[in-house]
Amino acid sequence: MTDTTPDPDPARTPVPPLRRRGERMRQAVLAAAVDLLTTQGLAGATVAAVARAAGVHETSVYRRWGSRENLILDALTSGLDTALPIPDTGGVRDDLVRFFTALAHLLDTAQGQALLRLSVERDDTLDDRRGPYWSERLDRAAAMVQRGVERGELAAGADPGLLVEAVSGPLFTRVLLSGAPVGPAYVERLVDLALNGARPRREP
Amino acid sequence: MTDTTPDPDPARTPVPPLRRRGERMRQAVLAAAVDLLTTQGLAGATVAAVARAAGVHETSVYRRWGSRENLILDALTSGLDTALPIPDTGGVRDDLVRFFTALAHLLDTAQGQALLRLSVERDDTLDDRRGPYWSERLDRAAAMVQRGVERGELAAGADPGLLVEAVSGPLFTRVLLSGAPVGPAYVERLVDLALNGARPRREP
Repeated sequence: MTDTTPDPDPARTPVPPLRRRGERMRQAVLAAAVDLLTTQGLAGATVAAVARAAGVHETSVYRRWGSRENLILDALTSGLDTALPIPDTGGVRDDLVRFFTALAHLLDTAQGQALLRLSVERDDTLDDRRGPYWSERLDRAAAMVQRGVERGELAAGADPGLLVEAVSGPLFTRVLLSGAPVGPAYVERLVDLALNGARPRREP
Repeated sequence: MTDTTPDPDPARTPVPPLRRRGERMRQAVLAAAVDLLTTQGLAGATVAAVARAAGVHETSVYRRWGSRENLILDALTSGLDTALPIPDTGGVRDDLVRFFTALAHLLDTAQGQALLRLSVERDDTLDDRRGPYWSERLDRAAAMVQRGVERGELAAGADPGLLVEAVSGPLFTRVLLSGAPVGPAYVERLVDLALNGARPRREP
């Protein structure tokens, strides 16, 4: 049982086999849940269907997650908490392009799309803890605009929330409604429009 | 039977009773369909449920609309074709504020919200004729921006589609995701951001 012996190198600290197996099972169930949510929507992601797809017993799923609701929320947000860091490059345009490129990238993944689609789906069996995922992250993004105002890069009256919505809204809408691509070039054009506007400019 | 006698005043031309009754039935069925779509989504708007709510026979619905699909599309777009005219006031800001205020107003109605929500819902029983409702109307809106470029109000390189998305995207997103209000003041702030940008401006 070398597995239980403490290891001086923390990166190599072995995980007890039971916990390791538990983590493998957790990952398999979450992956199956994301897959079912993506392909069949909320209605298709029953505990029975997820357990079957992951090759585990339904009772194991209930033992770990307690309810279908917890499983779905875990599947949707697992790993996404670190997906949208707020950059601080010292320039407002760079900050915004980086942040919204990361958002567009997230919206290009199966998990990000599933989370967004399900956030706008009505489902009486779930509490409304889905919408806050986006609003919390976009609220945090306002800090980039605020710093731009403090540095004098943006007008004193610039509205952080409005600017964030003017870039994120078109990204969400493309994913949800038109299916048009949300690549890095599109993100830059949206950021530049929100920063500079469409009117002719005299250089200061 | 004075109803069938021609009348010299076209505004007072009487409608034959049968057609009048048919039109009343059509309106009752469409209203019931909009109501069910709004409260219960696509899944709830079956022909049987709509017919029951409208107090008509299911066979009458099939006789008139042929299929559930036609009924739903008719319910969603009935009366909306004239809801979003493209104004031409001679000034790009006024044009944009008028158009997007009308869009926000439409999105504040039960029918507009139902159409938008259902446009982003996946449903294999319907052809995808829902998305085009929005894209056709937003494509037409690009003409307002184009005229602004021609008048020199906007930069020569201004992208009409991008500007339309930068205002409509946040409106759609508020309705679909956050539920935040889309009043006239919000529309004006979005239009002004897209026209002027958030950077400090030197007046020309």
